[in-house]
Amino acid sequence: MKLTATGLAQNAPAPLAFTDTVLRGLGQVMLQDNAYAGLLFLAGIFWNSRLFGCAALVGTIVGTTTALMMGAARDQVRQGLFGFNGALVGIALLYFLDPSPLAWGFVVVAAACSTVLMAALMNAFSTWKAPALTAPFVLTSLLFLLACARFGRLHSTGVLPTAGLPRAAEVEGLVTGATLLQGLFNGLGQIFFQGSLVTGALFALGLLVSSRKAFAAALLGSFAGALVAWGLGAAEPAIRAGAYGFNPALTAIALGSVFFAASRASAIYAALGTIATTVVFAGLSAALEPLGMPALTAPFVIVVWLFVLAGPLFPKLKTPGTST
Amino acid sequence: MKLTATGLAQNAPAPLAFTDTVLRGLGQVMLQDNAYAGLLFLAGIFWNSRLFGCAALVGTIVGTTTALMMGAARDQVRQGLFGFNGALVGIALLYFLDPSPLAWGFVVVAAACSTVLMAALMNAFSTWKAPALTAPFVLTSLLFLLACARFGRLHSTGVLPTAGLPRAAEVEGLVTGATLLQGLFNGLGQIFFQGSLVTGALFALGLLVSSRKAFAAALLGSFAGALVAWGLGAAEPAIRAGAYGFNPALTAIALGSVFFAASRASAIYAALGTIATTVVFAGLSAALEPLGMPALTAPFVIVVWLFVLAGPLFPKLKTPGTST
Amino acid sequence: MKLTATGLAQNAPAPLAFTDTVLRGLGQVMLQDNAYAGLLFLAGIFWNSRLFGCAALVGTIVGTTTALMMGAARDQVRQGLFGFNGALVGIALLYFLDPSPLAWGFVVVAAACSTVLMAALMNAFSTWKAPALTAPFVLTSLLFLLACARFGRLHSTGVLPTAGLPRAAEVEGLVTGATLLQGLFNGLGQIFFQGSLVTGALFALGLLVSSRKAFAAALLGSFAGALVAWGLGAAEPAIRAGAYGFNPALTAIALGSVFFAASRASAIYAALGTIATTVVFAGLSAALEPLGMPALTAPFVIVVWLFVLAGPLFPKLKTPGTST
Repeated sequence: MKLTATGLAQNAPAPLAFTDTVLRGLGQVMLQDNAYAGLLFLAGIFWNSRLFGCAALVGTIVGTTTALMMGAARDQVRQGLFGFNGALVGIALLYFLDPSPLAWGFVVVAAACSTVLMAALMNAFSTWKAPALTAPFVLTSLLFLLACARFGRLHSTGVLPTAGLPRAAEVEGLVTGATLLQGLFNGLGQIFFQGSLVTGALFALGLLVSSRKAFAAALLGSFAGALVAWGLGAAEPAIRAGAYGFNPALTAIALGSVFFAASRASAIYAALGTIATTVVFAGLSAALEPLGMPALTAPFVIVVWLFVLAGPLFPKLKTPGTST
Repeated sequence: MKLTATGLAQNAPAPLAFTDTVLRGLGQVMLQDNAYAGLLFLAGIFWNSRLFGCAALVGTIVGTTTALMMGAARDQVRQGLFGFNGALVGIALLYFLDPSPLAWGFVVVAAACSTVLMAALMNAFSTWKAPALTAPFVLTSLLFLLACARFGRLHSTGVLPTAGLPRAAEVEGLVTGATLLQGLFNGLGQIFFQGSLVTGALFALGLLVSSRKAFAAALLGSFAGALVAWGLGAAEPAIRAGAYGFNPALTAIALGSVFFAASRASAIYAALGTIATTVVFAGLSAALEPLGMPALTAPFVIVVWLFVLAGPLFPKLKTPGTST
Repeated sequence: MKLTATGLAQNAPAPLAFTDTVLRGLGQVMLQDNAYAGLLFLAGIFWNSRLFGCAALVGTIVGTTTALMMGAARDQVRQGLFGFNGALVGIALLYFLDPSPLAWGFVVVAAACSTVLMAALMNAFSTWKAPALTAPFVLTSLLFLLACARFGRLHSTGVLPTAGLPRAAEVEGLVTGATLLQGLFNGLGQIFFQGSLVTGALFALGLLVSSRKAFAAALLGSFAGALVAWGLGAAEPAIRAGAYGFNPALTAIALGSVFFAASRASAIYAALGTIATTVVFAGLSAALEPLGMPALTAPFVIVVWLFVLAGPLFPKLKTPGTST
């Protein structure tokens, strides 16, 4: 058994390789093909909630197993590409639904579906070499959660937004340094639906272990989200809870450390994308209000898709050779 | 004039060929390039309602004629590919709107548009060899029905869902064997908006004439939809009416008898898709509630698109050689 | 410095070339790569409102500059392709939001984003040689306007539709010759959110300078939209204000003078698209009612996309060689 910089070696024996694959799946939630990062993310979740830790594990295992059963390419499975959407689907469904046995069965079906969606989007987007990101998680979760308005045996935990019509906002509460600091770390935690500063710090550590650039980008992104939201007059409790941080953090990781090489133009581009993600989060939250649904990571997905698709027309942005 | 296993021969004289094309168009609603199936489907509709029988004919004829006028490829027209969306558009608009002369004019324009959409999606999806399915029908019908909220001379029949905000569901009514049996056949009938057991049986017969695999898949799909809906706590009247059956039946036909060759992996895959379709139907119905719109066959379209697009990444699923 | 039939020559000195590019950007709002048309459009806007004139200029300049900073292809920039969405974003945001300094900053970010979206869609749609049209404007404006339901420091001007659930329409008001005539010119004006007959006439003049076919198509399209809306029972004040005219006018320009060569089949096709656009405008307006959002030019974008994508399957429609 050989340890590499990102986890177990490719040729590790089967049961160990599967564990490594699951951990990489958790790492891929923040775009890190790194088992150590995944382990720290998992520790962060378990610190805050055993339920969500188990949900993430079950989702990742089901997603990965579905891909193996259908004969998906080994190297893609091994990178955790068929695990991260299942992880998020598992947490999301049990965050919003009472964890009855039926709800756990619902999670298994949804996680398996998220793997099919992942393969579908990987195929569809290969035309433009664009990534699927967490779109399978977003679509699966929204459709399965919406279905509960028809299915009387699945009960909401009451955390879902109340269905209503969007109205004009008022500035609400006073933003202080504490708001921004808590928003910064909660913003990382919310990537996995966790509202705990310790969890957020463990997530940051996981990123640091995997990539210094991703670590810096995530912190800057979450902070920028909080700042932009503050400047435009968002409600203080939402900023403090990290609601404006998790999507910009992911966008910053993707645009700032994964899809473009470092340059002045790339930095401006990533900054524009991060600001746009904050606005799109607000916009999509309002758009989903009549359905009583959360925006999840849809703002990140939409902005990064568009900014990556636009890349080839903007030669000042360089695509990375072999970097992290 | 020569009769083949699926209808008239390709080189039949013009007026007969056109009739055969229209019947195949009706058959294609359930993915059957088979004039006999189409004839039995038409008989099933007329048994229940002369109005809808005429609407289906007018829609199919207008859709097909539009394609001919624009010079579409003969063999594709001849397979009924430009007829089935028009058929469904015709029934849908007159199911939800009072059949005034203006409404009939509305049907003609909508059916012509559904042919343009069909060509657009055939072109767009050729990149991935993915099928357009009934997406042109869904999009055309939803947009034309939504438009009636602005157009005072088109009156609703009152069958459209009431616009409202989605709320938590309660288990409603007691599901019995009769519920499931009626749901099974009504599920087939609802593919053409018909709530009659005889009509459902005629549709099943049409499928049997065309393909035993499609017949079995449709019955299993409709039944599975009713079972899943029951297990998750859907309302009994909706299950009995076949509301949870028509989309899963279509998904089962598509995944189980058209787009993948028989194998153990394919069977599991089709089963997963069928279950997912039931959930997606519930989800989309809730999502469309603020607009007072029905989900139509959108759940079938979305699930089959994704499951077909994912296919090439799953080598355990084999694509069919020449089978039905 | 050389003047050509469409504006300054390609090799004009930098500051003049930039001015020419901005004017072409304004021209491209109606698909005209023509600086004189752009100048007349700008004059029309300023005639009605200095605020909107400035907003259009700022939006076009920001959009164009973003493309230049990112190294976009000179000839595409020079045709105004990265300006027109910014122009519309600028006007739209300040039409619906109080023009505070913060709102102007919002416009700058949104206009820059519209250029990224333009590049993204140009890349994505190059697979099918389909145009991006004003989709970047529509998406950017809707998301940025929706965001104001979360941001307390951006205030609506009260012109946005009230959020509500769609209801059945009643015929409202009496349509007269004056309704149709005003609707015809306001329909052109509304392309830039201007409700002034003089402005509409200046826009028509701009089109005439650039292309007689585009001029005729726009007038016919706006008039057809008003007629169809009248026939189906739309409200008289909306018809008079040009609400049913601006999308059909754009569709008629696109299908009637840009993407297909003149022929009998093309004329029928453009007429069908223009009628469909009127219906789709009504449908999308109703669909966006729960969000309190306007349909903008989304109906034009959707219909022209589909009708252009369908083109290759309809050989009776000829694509233009070198025409205007």
